Amino acid sequence: MKALVYHGPGQRGWDTVDDPTIVEPTDAIVRIDTSTICGTDLHILKGDVPETTPGTVLGHEAVGTVQEVGAGVTTVTPGDRVLMSCVSACGRCRFCKEGRYGQCLGGGGWIFGHLINGLQAEYARVPFADNSVYKVPAQLGDEQVLFLADILPTSFEVGVLNGRVTPGDVVAIVGAGPIGLAAILTARLYSPGQIVAIDLADSRLESAQRFGADTMINNGREDAVAEVMELTDGLGADVAFEAVGVPETFELAADLIRPGGHVANIGVHGHSAQLHLEKLWSRDVTITTGLVDTFSIPQLLRLIASGRLDPSLFATHRFALGDTMTAYDTFADAANTNALKIVLQGASGRAHNGRAAEVAATTA
Amino acid sequence: MKALVYHGPGQRGWDTVDDPTIVEPTDAIVRIDTSTICGTDLHILKGDVPETTPGTVLGHEAVGTVQEVGAGVTTVTPGDRVLMSCVSACGRCRFCKEGRYGQCLGGGGWIFGHLINGLQAEYARVPFADNSVYKVPAQLGDEQVLFLADILPTSFEVGVLNGRVTPGDVVAIVGAGPIGLAAILTARLYSPGQIVAIDLADSRLESAQRFGADTMINNGREDAVAEVMELTDGLGADVAFEAVGVPETFELAADLIRPGGHVANIGVHGHSAQLHLEKLWSRDVTITTGLVDTFSIPQLLRLIASGRLDPSLFATHRFALGDTMTAYDTFADAANTNALKIVLQGASGRAHNGRAAEVAATTA
Amino acid sequence: MKALVYHGPGQRGWDTVDDPTIVEPTDAIVRIDTSTICGTDLHILKGDVPETTPGTVLGHEAVGTVQEVGAGVTTVTPGDRVLMSCVSACGRCRFCKEGRYGQCLGGGGWIFGHLINGLQAEYARVPFADNSVYKVPAQLGDEQVLFLADILPTSFEVGVLNGRVTPGDVVAIVGAGPIGLAAILTARLYSPGQIVAIDLADSRLESAQRFGADTMINNGREDAVAEVMELTDGLGADVAFEAVGVPETFELAADLIRPGGHVANIGVHGHSAQLHLEKLWSRDVTITTGLVDTFSIPQLLRLIASGRLDPSLFATHRFALGDTMTAYDTFADAANTNALKIVLQGASGRAHNGRAAEVAATTA
Amino acid sequence: MKALVYHGPGQRGWDTVDDPTIVEPTDAIVRIDTSTICGTDLHILKGDVPETTPGTVLGHEAVGTVQEVGAGVTTVTPGDRVLMSCVSACGRCRFCKEGRYGQCLGGGGWIFGHLINGLQAEYARVPFADNSVYKVPAQLGDEQVLFLADILPTSFEVGVLNGRVTPGDVVAIVGAGPIGLAAILTARLYSPGQIVAIDLADSRLESAQRFGADTMINNGREDAVAEVMELTDGLGADVAFEAVGVPETFELAADLIRPGGHVANIGVHGHSAQLHLEKLWSRDVTITTGLVDTFSIPQLLRLIASGRLDPSLFATHRFALGDTMTAYDTFADAANTNALKIVLQGASGRAHNGRAAEVAATTA
Repeated sequence: MKALVYHGPGQRGWDTVDDPTIVEPTDAIVRIDTSTICGTDLHILKGDVPETTPGTVLGHEAVGTVQEVGAGVTTVTPGDRVLMSCVSACGRCRFCKEGRYGQCLGGGGWIFGHLINGLQAEYARVPFADNSVYKVPAQLGDEQVLFLADILPTSFEVGVLNGRVTPGDVVAIVGAGPIGLAAILTARLYSPGQIVAIDLADSRLESAQRFGADTMINNGREDAVAEVMELTDGLGADVAFEAVGVPETFELAADLIRPGGHVANIGVHGHSAQLHLEKLWSRDVTITTGLVDTFSIPQLLRLIASGRLDPSLFATHRFALGDTMTAYDTFADAANTNALKIVLQGASGRAHNGRAAEVAATTA
Repeated sequence: MKALVYHGPGQRGWDTVDDPTIVEPTDAIVRIDTSTICGTDLHILKGDVPETTPGTVLGHEAVGTVQEVGAGVTTVTPGDRVLMSCVSACGRCRFCKEGRYGQCLGGGGWIFGHLINGLQAEYARVPFADNSVYKVPAQLGDEQVLFLADILPTSFEVGVLNGRVTPGDVVAIVGAGPIGLAAILTARLYSPGQIVAIDLADSRLESAQRFGADTMINNGREDAVAEVMELTDGLGADVAFEAVGVPETFELAADLIRPGGHVANIGVHGHSAQLHLEKLWSRDVTITTGLVDTFSIPQLLRLIASGRLDPSLFATHRFALGDTMTAYDTFADAANTNALKIVLQGASGRAHNGRAAEVAATTA
Repeated sequence: MKALVYHGPGQRGWDTVDDPTIVEPTDAIVRIDTSTICGTDLHILKGDVPETTPGTVLGHEAVGTVQEVGAGVTTVTPGDRVLMSCVSACGRCRFCKEGRYGQCLGGGGWIFGHLINGLQAEYARVPFADNSVYKVPAQLGDEQVLFLADILPTSFEVGVLNGRVTPGDVVAIVGAGPIGLAAILTARLYSPGQIVAIDLADSRLESAQRFGADTMINNGREDAVAEVMELTDGLGADVAFEAVGVPETFELAADLIRPGGHVANIGVHGHSAQLHLEKLWSRDVTITTGLVDTFSIPQLLRLIASGRLDPSLFATHRFALGDTMTAYDTFADAANTNALKIVLQGASGRAHNGRAAEVAATTA
Repeated sequence: MKALVYHGPGQRGWDTVDDPTIVEPTDAIVRIDTSTICGTDLHILKGDVPETTPGTVLGHEAVGTVQEVGAGVTTVTPGDRVLMSCVSACGRCRFCKEGRYGQCLGGGGWIFGHLINGLQAEYARVPFADNSVYKVPAQLGDEQVLFLADILPTSFEVGVLNGRVTPGDVVAIVGAGPIGLAAILTARLYSPGQIVAIDLADSRLESAQRFGADTMINNGREDAVAEVMELTDGLGADVAFEAVGVPETFELAADLIRPGGHVANIGVHGHSAQLHLEKLWSRDVTITTGLVDTFSIPQLLRLIASGRLDPSLFATHRFALGDTMTAYDTFADAANTNALKIVLQGASGRAHNGRAAEVAATTA
């Protein structure tokens, strides 16, 4: 089969590799119908994720069709259309039993396109299939559910739920890239009173507005802390999300928060940040971190099926799966292409309403 | 009347000052029967709390008897024996309505011996009396409830409740001074499986054992992280309390925690700490800070009345109120005196079982 | 002044009565600008509420302007435009300190138009003013906030919050009168996946649809249990609200619920119901009851101010305050007039955008 | 092998039956080392559980040693000593993913000795072994953990956790049979201020006192409601458990509760009860029901291992497994024998400290 293979820092290819086969009785083999690219894939390509070894197929987000299942798989059968979670769950360890699949001690967690071959490929081996894939309701197209593989549950679980967004809250989101936008979209499920997006790029702030932000602050030009304090009678935001992954944005999020408020870190960090305990010790703040568990996929699926949530706004570009190399170029150049998420369509992917996708390199 | 007056850094006196009088209709005048000294009082004396001006009577913890009440006070009357909270509550602002009295926006919060005259005195003016004092059940002596004014609710609310201690948890407490000991005592209300006390001083670790710690680690000699990891199969503690107030101890607490665990900061900090987001971002940790609200005083009173909680272990030394100057010397020299909390007994204080205290400078 | 006075079962008058005066230092005198009528007022008129004695001024929902305050009132001053809660709060008792004002032990709770004179009058004495009224933001008209006095917080607190509505939930509401409609409106703040309204009257189900219900079931003609089971793959609703107040509707709500679901009783009951423990004991259900506390008024005010919640849909009819007698006739005949809530406009009431109301007996 | 077989109402035998074998790849075969009898077994024998068909081996609580595992089992291997939960969990359905194993939709739930052969036998087939058994720490004897199979988690999860027992609470327990006693024992993990046991039998109240109740009320002779009101200044208990399973005791529990309190039903009911909504509608009560999930077994194991919980008080009688017929007689005659729980010891069971049990029909 064909797959997008990592060949070491800066190197990738759309290569012919061996078809995957069942290794464990809990495995399934899935044909990839629709896949996508994540910012993390770019990090791997930069060499920032040393545990990913050359030769690994990348990708951890896809919708596909089950081809074959191991002897121990009981809940899916060949022909089932399934969403694959970016996080695999053994379903048996302490953390999986708490729904904390991202911390799986039994061999799961984030392994696709990281520790094992991933989902930017024609086929994939899916470990722990019973606890790691979700059947897609027939009436939903691949694109409607594709972003539940990672980005939406990440922002919902690690941002919105950890941050305990409550109706009427002022929610400040530092960073309006795809993760920040997913935080805006899913925060709205709890009817915050005001959503404040903060970013250095006006183009990203325009996206934030399109996703539902009420106030946009360019903190290259404006004093974000002063603006948020003015909006909140000097108290600060009820909830702040860090959605970038550098010390400055974390420290900004912590500066924005009101006494009793919540700072939810969503970003992936490579360095430590200053925690200003000399100010924060007495302010009753709660700071959370987290790796996505994707326990919320069934809930988010229900919200999409009932028309309450529409992630399709993310799909800015579409490519045939065979054009994944070009798709990477487009995604990596988001500053110019304004790409949010790229849809990679296999020959059998189904777009909205179950129709077979008309595959073309189009801009939405 | 006589009172302990702050005269600027390093300076204090047992002075004759004007008797307090009713200023606001919500005030009460209370005769101090039993008082005590807090580590914060020593900080003020060091000059670390610049908003406390020379001439201020110190102290924010006492039991006393109501002498007079303002026109707007409805729930206490002269003759009532009351515990005064270290935190005053206007009872009307947004935060008071949430029980978050430490963040009071209506003129309360920590003001005694800080922004207004305090409770190491023969009499005191108590603002917002209806929402800031608690009647003491007749069967309880002053000493049994005195430490509910500050230290016990501080460790219970900011440590145990914020840290969400749950039966069976491994709870690590960094710092075994009075605040750390109060955290041990109140954590036990939730039946942790193992309490680990960490400190640099063996004498404090001995106290920790007496208060109920199961494992004592001297992190001057031992590697606390390694020890806790060994105790927990490499996972880390479920809950860690920072009970010192310096960057190193906060960073240690954060190092001890398991994925999904809670770090509750109790210490008062003067400097920022490093938050190792490069390790923590994916570990699902929750970090909390807080100023005591003392909303838990009624609950803790019930626990003392029913014999479930006994704070009297803290009372290592007793002095007559008139000997407060000497008492400060003893308390400030805790490294040699092993003082935990000093009981200052006015002429009318009632020890256990309502008997008038036999006042003497004794070591318990 | 003029006021709507209860004269015993079936008897009411728009009478001249004494102007109210300050009695306690915590009182305020408020000029009523806009008031309304509640179903409970009709119950009192039927004689169902024996503790309400003839001679009592009715009404417990109003917006007005403070005229005078007692010596102990610190947070409102004459000229302030305020929303009066149907529930008065002493702010000092155990329950008030928990925000459970409906259970106030200090003389508050539901007393307006029940145990003391109420708010369908030109002026009113408002006890415990500091903890029982809420300043209205200048940009909001009286009608926009009037229904926060009772009906919206009732359905929000006792229904939506007690029932723990979560994004994606199937929420079944038994009874589509004003309380049921307020439950629909406020449940939407949590983005349920599907709202199912159940009632015997098609006209009320039409209102339910207008307020946001997705599925309407007339349980006079249809089998509500069977319909809900079909909608939920045989599991049952995640949350069910009882919004009528008779045994049959409570029992229906309990029949609709899935294992692990919540039944939130909002209705006022005069009789016991059967609790089918022989079915429910093993189904992990949670059943809640409650009297409104109105602790959510500040939150709901923020949601209205930010445009996230619009209760004005309730205002089906408007009358001058002087026409309150006629307004009662219209409200009592809701089956024919389709009245949901009647707005009673004093001479000084301000409609939307702060304009003085154009007062007329109009149908919205 | 030998097993206790149900032969229809009133009929049982210690019969020779076929040895169990692996049927599904998720099965394990376990040798029973220690087992016990539950009140539910007596209900089956009375014919109250019609879905249990004659020929079924009874019993759903045991400690044993794994003999063989199916191809899909990954977390236990032959030789492992395991506690079997009374509730089997497929680990893959919606409810299992929430830890709500008692509601398993994938073939689990309470099936042992109910829908499939049970654990009062020399060997048993254990379905879904990965999610339904728990390894026993080497230092713990069978008897120390045996009662975690059902009775302790039942009272802890369905009583203590559902009832949200909090330090200082007054907890009233209606019914002091084994389930009520387990509720006392596990409620103490949360340091209630006062535990009130209510029963008609003085002998059971004596047991309650032994397990930690502070106040014992014989409601055949005393007015339990009046007594609890007197203990609580007329407010009522914070939490009440129903631990019998008849309408009267449920209604008593609901009568005992304070405004804002919790009634947790633990009993198994055959009839409906009156829910006095005419009193309860305004009292902010929460009523819960539940089937045990046993999600708390790992937590309770940690508490036993750390010496915080000691369930061995339940073991009033011990019999060899071969004497199960006699053991049933003793257990069924608890009124005379004062049996709480009977320990059935197979030839290989290990009592405390890992020693092989000295098997004899002794009274503890």
